[in-house]
Amino acid sequence: MGMDYSRVRDWILREDCFDPLRLGKCESVMSLGNGYLGLRSATEERYLRETRGMFVAGTFNKFDENEVTELPNAADMTAMELTIDGEPFDLTVGTMEEYTRELNIRTGELVRRVLWISPAGRRIRFASYRTVSLKNLHEIAQRVEITPLSGDVTVSVRSGIDATVTNTGSQHFSEGDKRFYDKKAIQFVLRTTQSGIDFVQTTQHRLAVDGRVQEQDAQVYIERREIFAGYEVKVRQDECFALEKYSSVYTTRDFDAAGRTTAELQEAGLTACREMETQGYAGILADSAAQWEAEVWGRTPICIEGNAQAELNQFAVRFAQYHMRIMVPAQDNRMNIGAKGLSGEGYKGHCFWDTEIFLLPYYSFTAPEIARRLEEYRYLSLPGAHAKAAHNGYRGAMFPWESAWLDDGEVTPEYCDVDILTGKPVKVWSGILEQHITSDVAFGAWQYAAITGDEDFMDQYGYELIFDTAIFWASRLEAGEDGCYHINDVVGPDEFREHVNDNAFTNYMAKWNMEKALEYYELLKTEKPEIFAELNEKLQLDAACEAWQDGCAHIFLPQPTAENVLPQDDRCLRCRAIDLTKDQQQEHLGGIQRD
Amino acid sequence: MGMDYSRVRDWILREDCFDPLRLGKCESVMSLGNGYLGLRSATEERYLRETRGMFVAGTFNKFDENEVTELPNAADMTAMELTIDGEPFDLTVGTMEEYTRELNIRTGELVRRVLWISPAGRRIRFASYRTVSLKNLHEIAQRVEITPLSGDVTVSVRSGIDATVTNTGSQHFSEGDKRFYDKKAIQFVLRTTQSGIDFVQTTQHRLAVDGRVQEQDAQVYIERREIFAGYEVKVRQDECFALEKYSSVYTTRDFDAAGRTTAELQEAGLTACREMETQGYAGILADSAAQWEAEVWGRTPICIEGNAQAELNQFAVRFAQYHMRIMVPAQDNRMNIGAKGLSGEGYKGHCFWDTEIFLLPYYSFTAPEIARRLEEYRYLSLPGAHAKAAHNGYRGAMFPWESAWLDDGEVTPEYCDVDILTGKPVKVWSGILEQHITSDVAFGAWQYAAITGDEDFMDQYGYELIFDTAIFWASRLEAGEDGCYHINDVVGPDEFREHVNDNAFTNYMAKWNMEKALEYYELLKTEKPEIFAELNEKLQLDAACEAWQDGCAHIFLPQPTAENVLPQDDRCLRCRAIDLTKDQQQEHLGGIQRD
Repeated sequence: MGMDYSRVRDWILREDCFDPLRLGKCESVMSLGNGYLGLRSATEERYLRETRGMFVAGTFNKFDENEVTELPNAADMTAMELTIDGEPFDLTVGTMEEYTRELNIRTGELVRRVLWISPAGRRIRFASYRTVSLKNLHEIAQRVEITPLSGDVTVSVRSGIDATVTNTGSQHFSEGDKRFYDKKAIQFVLRTTQSGIDFVQTTQHRLAVDGRVQEQDAQVYIERREIFAGYEVKVRQDECFALEKYSSVYTTRDFDAAGRTTAELQEAGLTACREMETQGYAGILADSAAQWEAEVWGRTPICIEGNAQAELNQFAVRFAQYHMRIMVPAQDNRMNIGAKGLSGEGYKGHCFWDTEIFLLPYYSFTAPEIARRLEEYRYLSLPGAHAKAAHNGYRGAMFPWESAWLDDGEVTPEYCDVDILTGKPVKVWSGILEQHITSDVAFGAWQYAAITGDEDFMDQYGYELIFDTAIFWASRLEAGEDGCYHINDVVGPDEFREHVNDNAFTNYMAKWNMEKALEYYELLKTEKPEIFAELNEKLQLDAACEAWQDGCAHIFLPQPTAENVLPQDDRCLRCRAIDLTKDQQQEHLGGIQRD
Repeated sequence: MGMDYSRVRDWILREDCFDPLRLGKCESVMSLGNGYLGLRSATEERYLRETRGMFVAGTFNKFDENEVTELPNAADMTAMELTIDGEPFDLTVGTMEEYTRELNIRTGELVRRVLWISPAGRRIRFASYRTVSLKNLHEIAQRVEITPLSGDVTVSVRSGIDATVTNTGSQHFSEGDKRFYDKKAIQFVLRTTQSGIDFVQTTQHRLAVDGRVQEQDAQVYIERREIFAGYEVKVRQDECFALEKYSSVYTTRDFDAAGRTTAELQEAGLTACREMETQGYAGILADSAAQWEAEVWGRTPICIEGNAQAELNQFAVRFAQYHMRIMVPAQDNRMNIGAKGLSGEGYKGHCFWDTEIFLLPYYSFTAPEIARRLEEYRYLSLPGAHAKAAHNGYRGAMFPWESAWLDDGEVTPEYCDVDILTGKPVKVWSGILEQHITSDVAFGAWQYAAITGDEDFMDQYGYELIFDTAIFWASRLEAGEDGCYHINDVVGPDEFREHVNDNAFTNYMAKWNMEKALEYYELLKTEKPEIFAELNEKLQLDAACEAWQDGCAHIFLPQPTAENVLPQDDRCLRCRAIDLTKDQQQEHLGGIQRD
């Protein structure tokens, strides 16, 4: 039951049992994407507990003043209402004789195969195929096949664009133009309510029976926030009815939208769908698979050989590579990687320290141009980091724990769960106190350059990032009565401990940051005097240098105990009694983690 | 299948077959309410195609600049996730051996009784009871009973407040305070995004097994826009597990909220739920039923006697009386009756000519204090009517075809369906052209006073309404080359004909309106000189009087043909060829009618 690893040799992750109570897992794990857009793998037919989601990188919007900016859930283009002789195709009723859902990570294709007996006893062979193109980032292609095995049937289809979807109830879009072109293409323009980004979504269908294309004017249905095409086709027993759906997404925030009007994007959307129809599903998939080969598998053929476990390990690494590609906005340095990628609304599309600490090394080694863009994003978001430092009474660049728009600064939500004892909402402290993010960013910039040798990056962005963050740390240190500098009242990487003093990771990294700044101060002064002069004027490096020396000399660094344990903060080895229980931790995690 | 009239003698409308593809019908037809709030009868357990809805009269909000103001769909308090030994209670799976859903219109109670065999074979007797109190307008009471017939079971319940609901995707609420009191009561404050009305929604539960109350701290779940209590109870075979849920709704727009802060309403909400628990479901229902008897059935015992059909006719009249009571905001003259009552989001809660032409006579004859408030609403909304007249270049009061807030003026949406041929949205002309609403309002005021003899109403509001609307008509007339006045380019009561000239209903009613003004001009001058003086100064009646005389004398009135047919407009008997086909009409209706 559940995940099946029998086909990992073929790069395929399989689900062998459909569970309508746990739809979120495969929607996320098998999600499709290309770094520009991400698509949860919700099924064509709708279910009560589904979470449909499509997200376009960097299109942040804020629902109201009480909420933080987040990636909006774009209008759905994948759902189809499929009715066979009046019976809706619905796997929660009737009988399933065969069922598999497979994600092919090599080609980026999602395939479902079902043999279903309807409640009225109709035997139906069903298959669906879907891909998000890595070749043309705006395109989604679907194919659905229905073969009646126990008699002739009439298949009805209702498929289009559904903008009633929300981010768990928060609606980020205003309805714009709804159009129906040539009794075929459907187009919906929607604008984000606060950030004013136009989404142009277009879709059209092709119907065939046993390969014979069925030319048929669509019946159009338009309702509030919805526009659909309806088709009805008679299919004889053992014939295969195939519906292909070609969809495109363009936004005025796109990497390639500069200077293009919404009307031009509408034209581009229509053209894309027409061209997709000309090419057909198989052609679109082949092109995208070739792009996967060129861009990822051929370029980064990580191989694991060895024991019986090797095949699974090999797949696990490739699965990570797959998700590392679909989540990264490789095309655009104005955005970064969300903590949940583009696979759902969890973490609101915000980027965290995960980028530098967990993800960046892979890109630095395998796709340095992508790694560079991720760090350019940090440089471009310095205005937000300066604002956050100033707001908190510090100097330099204090990076936001959660980051969205370049100039947003901190976007961590203020409250999360409710406290069981008091009944009041629990404050989220990481936005204010999880300050190690600032040295993590500096570390990422340094590490990228160390791996790639990209001296141009350091000259343009890296040195400045490291100086500016070190300036923050010098201003952040608190002089203690013991003659040392302390960093009090923080959250370290262990987020279950709030308001701790002298967190080991935080203090060591702060010192590293200032040391690195000192090192580069000397280096630039002697070897790159022009850059030095420019940054010295911008950041007053000479004055900062003294503060760094002082800070590095006197910062308190927790030392290992006699048992060689480095306490993570000043309370760590004294307070086991008040540690959260495992259950409490799970509960806490439950509130912030999402399928 | 479907509706069953076998119990109409007991005032009961019954559904005898559950159809998950057509949930909207019973949700609407069997909806509950009290004029302050309306609750669609969506089931406790959720289904894919359900439309959950709860609306509080007069709490209009506007989602964005492109949308018109509408009644927002308030957070749901009726849904419950019921799980029996891990199996969700879900009537789309397993087997149903018995099923009825009944609305008792005498008591305002909704009851479902089901004998269900779960997919794993558990026999479960299920019943649910629900009422919206007519005694205390803020209260909703529910009771659910689960009796396992084939062995002991563990029942899990997850029930609370769900603010992820929308108006077909448009979200009208910002999240406010979410609280959990005494491990029992749940409270959610939500504010409408544009009109700034606070909704305070509170709920709490009581559990019992075979009458033995189960004291149990709730497990609380809080998620985005949701707050739930969780319970788990072991129930032996043939024991009856009963869950009662007591919910209250208060808003800062309430008829009785003047001067009360949101914090005070929060306290009121908690108190109401505590008192409901003390009283219990049966007591709340009994009090509400007594109110129905006192306010409606005892006061207006419309009786139909006679042939075999009489019983059904009797029920039909009472069914109308039931809905006439649950849809009317009897408590508040700042609001009116929505075209779909409070039973759904169709027509956006706006009031139309339906109030005066179809509904008012019933209230005037049976509950004149309610009728008077409905017409006071029109008087209070004169500022909007003046603004509409001025905007269109006319004088006096030009009432909005669709009306919401008192000062909104016209709130008819500008576009509805898409034109199949051009692919472009179709403009809704009734807001601009369906001008007969203005004389309909005058007619309603006159008719109310004629039925009730309420001279105080006429003195305070009625005469002014009739004068002000007559002033509009005089300014609206267009002098033709034939020496007559015409009213061109309108929509009459037949909305399938747009841009017609000299619509019979419009022209005759305009003349009636001016004649009535002339009559009252003379009357007041002689019999109520003080009121005359006041209105003459306010409205320049002397000048208006001349225009009315001129208008009445020369307005074009379509005359019956030789066959004694009164053509509804100047194209009516000339243009059958371009009439819409029946199918086109159906299609048109499909776009605006809702379950």
